[in-house]
Amino acid sequence: MFNEVIEPPLSHMSWIEGSVDIPAGFAVFAAESGIIAGRPDMALIWSTRPAVISGLFTTNQVKAWPVLLTRKTVERGLCQAIIVNAGNANAANGPEGERDAKWIQNRTADGLKVPSRYVALASTGVIGVPLPMNKVSLGIDTLLEHWNANAPAGGKMAGEAILTTDQVPKILAAEIELPEGRVRLGVMAKGSGMIHPNMGTMLAFITTDADVEKPVQDELLRHAVDGSFHRVSVDGDSSTNDTVLMLANKSSHVSIKTTEAISRFQYALTHLLRQTARMIAADGEGASRLVTCRIEGAASGTDAAQKARAVVRSNLVKAAVYGQDPNWGRILAAIGTVGDPFEMDRVSIAVGLVDLFRHGVPVAFDETQAKAAMGLHEVVIVVDLGQGSCSEEAWGCDLTHRYVEINAQYRT
Amino acid sequence: MFNEVIEPPLSHMSWIEGSVDIPAGFAVFAAESGIIAGRPDMALIWSTRPAVISGLFTTNQVKAWPVLLTRKTVERGLCQAIIVNAGNANAANGPEGERDAKWIQNRTADGLKVPSRYVALASTGVIGVPLPMNKVSLGIDTLLEHWNANAPAGGKMAGEAILTTDQVPKILAAEIELPEGRVRLGVMAKGSGMIHPNMGTMLAFITTDADVEKPVQDELLRHAVDGSFHRVSVDGDSSTNDTVLMLANKSSHVSIKTTEAISRFQYALTHLLRQTARMIAADGEGASRLVTCRIEGAASGTDAAQKARAVVRSNLVKAAVYGQDPNWGRILAAIGTVGDPFEMDRVSIAVGLVDLFRHGVPVAFDETQAKAAMGLHEVVIVVDLGQGSCSEEAWGCDLTHRYVEINAQYRT
Repeated sequence: MFNEVIEPPLSHMSWIEGSVDIPAGFAVFAAESGIIAGRPDMALIWSTRPAVISGLFTTNQVKAWPVLLTRKTVERGLCQAIIVNAGNANAANGPEGERDAKWIQNRTADGLKVPSRYVALASTGVIGVPLPMNKVSLGIDTLLEHWNANAPAGGKMAGEAILTTDQVPKILAAEIELPEGRVRLGVMAKGSGMIHPNMGTMLAFITTDADVEKPVQDELLRHAVDGSFHRVSVDGDSSTNDTVLMLANKSSHVSIKTTEAISRFQYALTHLLRQTARMIAADGEGASRLVTCRIEGAASGTDAAQKARAVVRSNLVKAAVYGQDPNWGRILAAIGTVGDPFEMDRVSIAVGLVDLFRHGVPVAFDETQAKAAMGLHEVVIVVDLGQGSCSEEAWGCDLTHRYVEINAQYRT
Repeated sequence: MFNEVIEPPLSHMSWIEGSVDIPAGFAVFAAESGIIAGRPDMALIWSTRPAVISGLFTTNQVKAWPVLLTRKTVERGLCQAIIVNAGNANAANGPEGERDAKWIQNRTADGLKVPSRYVALASTGVIGVPLPMNKVSLGIDTLLEHWNANAPAGGKMAGEAILTTDQVPKILAAEIELPEGRVRLGVMAKGSGMIHPNMGTMLAFITTDADVEKPVQDELLRHAVDGSFHRVSVDGDSSTNDTVLMLANKSSHVSIKTTEAISRFQYALTHLLRQTARMIAADGEGASRLVTCRIEGAASGTDAAQKARAVVRSNLVKAAVYGQDPNWGRILAAIGTVGDPFEMDRVSIAVGLVDLFRHGVPVAFDETQAKAAMGLHEVVIVVDLGQGSCSEEAWGCDLTHRYVEINAQYRT
């Protein structure tokens, strides 16, 4: 849906078609377990050698069983496989959920002939329902068969297998040129169905064949997620299952140690995850448009990011975008709810190239042009605060009839 | 719409049909100025003597001109008239908005033969558009004519005049028995159109013939609003125009000074505003149902209130209520996003009288009964945290197709 809006590659970074199996020493497989009838619903990411693992998890106080188990693997620091299912969150379903998660971990580890602690888990789907273990078991068997047979790359199918109400697989891969050599990065993600407010699960898995030490990778991932996925959902508002995992398996024999290497790698990783974040926003539940809000002229990056998020999370702004209504009053009111104070007579607001509000005064804009700017696949809202020189972006989607339909009928 | 759910009066409090004109020494008038074609859109609340004024305003950094002017009147402490218009927020429309607000204040004061500083203003409606001053001027003239003629009580019509997208006038009145005598309270309010997240304006005007000193009334109002309107919208998320004003004109010659009087008055005022808050929630934009969330068994009232608000503001819960889907997983996930940690195996969730989740385990509930409980005019979600003995409520409404329609088409 939004592959076409990918920005031109940076000079030391180039896009490659593919997914988490593009970095050397990784493979990915998919299976139809039957949890969701008639489509792939389980995926396995495999590293030929134990990889350094970093991870970030939901801040929700209600945590799914796979989150609780995988957190331990991340703390220990090594991982060789990630097994994912869609259709069932394995959360808030009583103690049997924990038993089931452990069974999946052990069964997968046995099949792959690795220690159980090297297997990470992630689930997404309905909360409070026991996992259908006969189906899950069948799915694991199929995944292991593919693995045994060294089946051809299943990147796209695996990308589909982890979706729930989102429509489009979110897979990307890139190559980075470093002074020390070339490394590759791959990502596979699923959307937080509803983006904002909360509770639609976001999963993202990142692989790299770089040689990165755990403390360095932890930092790299944290920074990249701050500048990407945290600009889609709102801090502190998260589902029971949100999980971001990154594996580095050293297969390239290029290590990320020098300042130059770390800085290039950070830039590329953040860029990759920002593109993924935009794809997630564009594919929000029922969404017809991607909404990008860029706050410019802020006194600090924190303030800019906070205000940008306030705009893309506002139901009123989201509904106005759906109706192609250039309602800058709602944008102005949204930025007024958070962050630092500002002088209104310095504020300007535009949608695309159409000025709506300039230095505190409404502009007599051309309605047809403004409506057209609100009708693009990507609606870009630019607010210049006139307070400083910092700018940040956030991404969301419009609020549509389809959104209400999907969420009024999800469970039943 | 929700007059029928008013709780039985407390022993020292009784409901009276009417509005802000019920307390002695107050009158209320309405006019059709033409800002909104074909319906009353301006209102005037009049006190025969200068009244002590307390007020609370939006925390949005973008404040409408009437808010900035009226804040000064509240700081000074005396007020004799409140003039309100719907259809135009008089916000973010450049310096002429300030000039217009001052003109309205002066013109009204001249007509009523009171000092300008005794006139408070409130506006609600579209942001960023200049006030149509020819219409406003006509409206003021009509209001002054009614005032001159001592026209019969216009409580209901004034209640209609201040509405925007909400449907039902929110007017209530009550009498309180105190050891010192009887005093009366009246309220007239309009809904925050969208309730949550933000930016639908909420206006509320409270009158009383009690004799209350300003510092006492400031405290009484603050407490009452904390337990009522702040349970509908979310702290910190507010429109450019939100205003709550309270006038006490001493006409009853009963003073609120003793601990007993203050305590009874506080209880009655809070109770009155809680009913108003419920009416506002029930009449949220496009709403088909009032959603009440009561959090019980919390360790603190703050935690209970925070979690109750998180439930009623969740788009996923709101959409589930619209679809009559007893999706307790979304309720559980919502309470996990805020406040204190909790042990999941102590948590129970019910809708109406139907248990959905008990001590951390899903209940095999009767779908028909649960669907019925989700289909009532008031859907009551009860969460028992099992952590302590505090409980608090919050109110919201469902998220409907109609909501999306209204907000996709508001301005154009």
